[in-house]
Amino acid sequence: MRELTLDLGERSYPIRIAPNLLSDNDWPSFIKGKQACVVTNETIAPLYLEAVLARLQGWQVSVVVLPDGESHKNLETLNTIFDQLLEDNHTRKTTLIALGGGVVGDMTGFAAACYQRGVPFIQLPTTLLSMVDSSVGGKTGVNHALGKNMIGAFYQPECVIIDTETLTTLPPREFSAGLAEVLKYGLIADVPFYDWLEANWDGLLARDPELLAEAILCSCENKARVVAEDEREGGRRAILNLGHTFGHAIETATGYGSWLHGEAVATGMLIAAKLSSDLGWIADAEVERLASLLQRADLPLNPPAEMAAEQFLSLMARDKKVLDGRLRLVLLKALGEAVVTDEVEQAKVIAAIEAVR
Amino acid sequence: MRELTLDLGERSYPIRIAPNLLSDNDWPSFIKGKQACVVTNETIAPLYLEAVLARLQGWQVSVVVLPDGESHKNLETLNTIFDQLLEDNHTRKTTLIALGGGVVGDMTGFAAACYQRGVPFIQLPTTLLSMVDSSVGGKTGVNHALGKNMIGAFYQPECVIIDTETLTTLPPREFSAGLAEVLKYGLIADVPFYDWLEANWDGLLARDPELLAEAILCSCENKARVVAEDEREGGRRAILNLGHTFGHAIETATGYGSWLHGEAVATGMLIAAKLSSDLGWIADAEVERLASLLQRADLPLNPPAEMAAEQFLSLMARDKKVLDGRLRLVLLKALGEAVVTDEVEQAKVIAAIEAVR
Repeated sequence: MRELTLDLGERSYPIRIAPNLLSDNDWPSFIKGKQACVVTNETIAPLYLEAVLARLQGWQVSVVVLPDGESHKNLETLNTIFDQLLEDNHTRKTTLIALGGGVVGDMTGFAAACYQRGVPFIQLPTTLLSMVDSSVGGKTGVNHALGKNMIGAFYQPECVIIDTETLTTLPPREFSAGLAEVLKYGLIADVPFYDWLEANWDGLLARDPELLAEAILCSCENKARVVAEDEREGGRRAILNLGHTFGHAIETATGYGSWLHGEAVATGMLIAAKLSSDLGWIADAEVERLASLLQRADLPLNPPAEMAAEQFLSLMARDKKVLDGRLRLVLLKALGEAVVTDEVEQAKVIAAIEAVR
Repeated sequence: MRELTLDLGERSYPIRIAPNLLSDNDWPSFIKGKQACVVTNETIAPLYLEAVLARLQGWQVSVVVLPDGESHKNLETLNTIFDQLLEDNHTRKTTLIALGGGVVGDMTGFAAACYQRGVPFIQLPTTLLSMVDSSVGGKTGVNHALGKNMIGAFYQPECVIIDTETLTTLPPREFSAGLAEVLKYGLIADVPFYDWLEANWDGLLARDPELLAEAILCSCENKARVVAEDEREGGRRAILNLGHTFGHAIETATGYGSWLHGEAVATGMLIAAKLSSDLGWIADAEVERLASLLQRADLPLNPPAEMAAEQFLSLMARDKKVLDGRLRLVLLKALGEAVVTDEVEQAKVIAAIEAVR
């Protein structure tokens, strides 16, 4: 088993990575009370719910099965979790358990942050994207029609249990979407990892279990390092959003769900890389290298045809990183060195969007 | 001006009490960014919104006017705050300003806790109840059809600005409801204050400004002391809920709003006092003394006729203080000495409810 710790003082927690972890008896020891509520979705429930419930004999357990997809990540769906918890008289000593991908994890974490003003929760991520990104670091929340992840909380789990065996059932599009976030860590902070990813790209695409476990560990280590420095995104944590400002605009414009989050981030990273090379910060060849990796993973290289550059700009004006009316973008000062800047001319942003289109 | 500090380390904040504070230029200095959003309701807006907005020239200001009343304290109404913030492009550096009573304060605080995962907020309470209780201590949230304040956050304001002049426009029922919470501090922790309240009850009922300011200060000091010891209600803070477990059951059973929160707490405190005297912890005469004070303030002494004792018990089973299936009640071990206990027989609880009915 691979293991690391996200170091946040009294809110520190372990992240464990190995095949078949869902079926062992270790993780339920993180449940402190006598009640638990498993939150999952209609796709994941038939695959893994039984294995999880088998580990929870002896607890009073409720189950909430959400509809699948980013389009349901909203306050209304969130309320169905509260309905179940209250109907079953869950107290403030209950523990919520997120079994699923990023949407399930974000909503369960936010429900845990708010239920009776805060109860503990456990992350059992079952998608590559949630393993390497969303389940780690305590960002929880739901979308609003006017912007992604606009309503939420910083709220850390008790532990993150990554059962790599669940990746065998992940649909190809979702798998590729996760790889986009894996590439991100190389781009923003870890050139040796980026080189390693490129060298092992075919094996990763073939879902080699050892390569995947190593990629997940390295991604989580990179994320944990940044989050430990800046839990509430006062500064450096924003670099984890490489490609996300453009990506969130795509997700919002297309109505959440038609593009997967990781797909939108892939295209967004390519725009950010193009803009970085236009500024002379990275070589043009690096943009090509990224495009080639994305393409080999069947990730989209171009934003939706119907999205004008102006629509990008108007949606990005609501980004959480905007300060005093100035758009702040995560760009690459060099390969492996992300920076947050508000000094890029709008014309250059538009040019990069148009160039990638 | 009277002033005290709620001491919570880096989350400490001042509570200021004086007439006409809304109209002075001091409180806006707590707004750190260039944007602010005033959240108020349709009753308070015509009275005080103009005075507040006059102090906010130079900021980009949005206004949200909520419908009045506890029945609107839910996720749906909360979302209208997010709508406005996003439509007007408020960033994570915006400051929310709660102008109103407990419902406005609880919802604005919770919106601040969740908007973009947390923005600062300021409390400008305009009712006696919110001045002495809900605006102080960081409990924020909304109701759920199955339980009061079940969805929320512990989230502290930047400051609490209590303009005592606003009490002159408070309707009599709301004023009395606030007095119930004032009495609570005497009952749970401060016998000299309780004696002082009894001695000055007529003057307080006549809204003598000096007496009211003193009662507000003493209430806030008592509350600040308890909250500073136990911000997230791991233990002692629960004593602030004297009468609230019974009161919340009344509010939930009657559909939020037909009983004011303070009215339900008044009846709840009387049940708790009766139960405490049945247990031999306080003198019977203290129950009479409390009933007399409540009656002189036109506060209700009896629960709703249609509520059977069994309905109390079933609603109270969802109380946030319930642990491992055991109902935990705040009772008076002695006058001025509240305790939390889970050792009272159900039959005695029923008897006290019936006795007060």
